[in-house]
Amino acid sequence: MKSVVLIGAGNLATQLGLRFKEVGVAIEQVYSRSVDSAKKLADLLSAEFTTETRNIFSADIYIIALADKAFHSVLENIDFKNALILHTAGSISLTELKSYSSNYGVFYPLQTFSKERKVEFETIPICVEANSEENLNEIKKLAQLCSKDVREINSEQRKSLHLAAIFCCNFVNHMYHLSAEVTETHAVDFNILRPLIKETVAKIDLMHPKDAQTGPAVRYDENIMDKHLAQLEDEKLMKELYAKLSKSINYYQNK
Amino acid sequence: MKSVVLIGAGNLATQLGLRFKEVGVAIEQVYSRSVDSAKKLADLLSAEFTTETRNIFSADIYIIALADKAFHSVLENIDFKNALILHTAGSISLTELKSYSSNYGVFYPLQTFSKERKVEFETIPICVEANSEENLNEIKKLAQLCSKDVREINSEQRKSLHLAAIFCCNFVNHMYHLSAEVTETHAVDFNILRPLIKETVAKIDLMHPKDAQTGPAVRYDENIMDKHLAQLEDEKLMKELYAKLSKSINYYQNK
Repeated sequence: MKSVVLIGAGNLATQLGLRFKEVGVAIEQVYSRSVDSAKKLADLLSAEFTTETRNIFSADIYIIALADKAFHSVLENIDFKNALILHTAGSISLTELKSYSSNYGVFYPLQTFSKERKVEFETIPICVEANSEENLNEIKKLAQLCSKDVREINSEQRKSLHLAAIFCCNFVNHMYHLSAEVTETHAVDFNILRPLIKETVAKIDLMHPKDAQTGPAVRYDENIMDKHLAQLEDEKLMKELYAKLSKSINYYQNK
Repeated sequence: MKSVVLIGAGNLATQLGLRFKEVGVAIEQVYSRSVDSAKKLADLLSAEFTTETRNIFSADIYIIALADKAFHSVLENIDFKNALILHTAGSISLTELKSYSSNYGVFYPLQTFSKERKVEFETIPICVEANSEENLNEIKKLAQLCSKDVREINSEQRKSLHLAAIFCCNFVNHMYHLSAEVTETHAVDFNILRPLIKETVAKIDLMHPKDAQTGPAVRYDENIMDKHLAQLEDEKLMKELYAKLSKSINYYQNK
């Protein structure tokens, strides 16, 4: 059995660690700068933990699940001794690992992870890439234990996917958040919107989003749009977004 | 049996007409300025049709399903003879009907409708309002034939719901559209994003959207956001939206 160390203890590290445990891949140690996060995840995984890079164990495989901004500053301080190191980020190129080991690759699960929410991991697309055929095979084996959907995706494609994911996940979720802001401000029940939210997503299983679009912006119904902008008079940022999103709908629907 | 005339033949009129037919409420006539739309819907409903307001039949109930911008200009030309008239719009106040009849109300199904897509009508919240108790009861009876979820919602609440619906439906769908633009431009398969899209919406069944948020904007990871903005160099509008949406995430998550 290969020994595995997990560098990071955030949302992705947590759900990935739990999936590894579930499929019988033991994590030996968890590293995080935050003692609380490191300890909490290590407990869940029956692993050791450390907050000091110098105390990181020797291992066969290192999984890097760090925020981009911490990525290089943490890795610079670890001696990987040419073990296989995998990063899990959408926006970091494969080659950014090459100064740390001669064996490296990418293991990018395309999903939104929160610490407390268990996800159905076997349906998550895992995008893999490596610096050699041998390492690619090793990564694929690991990925196939976790998911039925393992795909070879190069760094350029992965960058595009990550950008696309921001729109269809983070920005979509933010639209739900703004929608909830509106209902909460006016004391109406957000739950009344749930059938609409469900239908909006169900439609794009069968139609291109362009063909699924409805509402005032696509009809260019200025009457309604002006009323809505007036309703948002006290919410400057939301008002600007409403105007820009309507403009964008108009542009991309007619492109 | 009350006689019913449908004013309008767009997405909502089509799906509402089909639902009426399904539950045994016959539409006698369909009016639309477009002969194609009028005829097509009339055929589906085994109804008559007209494109001239002066040829609209006398009826007990008129259902108005017009775009806001056409609303008054069409209604001004119809003699309703004090029949019960119902509009179906999110953003129009009840009282905007009062010059056309002394019996009026609102029948607003809170859903996104496309002509070609059949919806599960019995779960759609129908927001009702009327100028008298008697008319309200009449509208409720009609609504309860169509859906299990009929709610009394006043004009102010309905206006807020309609605005909230733009965010969680039209703008969400536009985010899917932009996401598809990114994948299509870079020749990656949009379908790989489907598990992410499904999980994003499934999360808010259990968590407030604020707690469900993930990604670079909520972590304020400028590294990633700058990379994404650079990737969008040639798509000015999308780049502006990315920046503004990230700013908005940051603002509303910390509000």
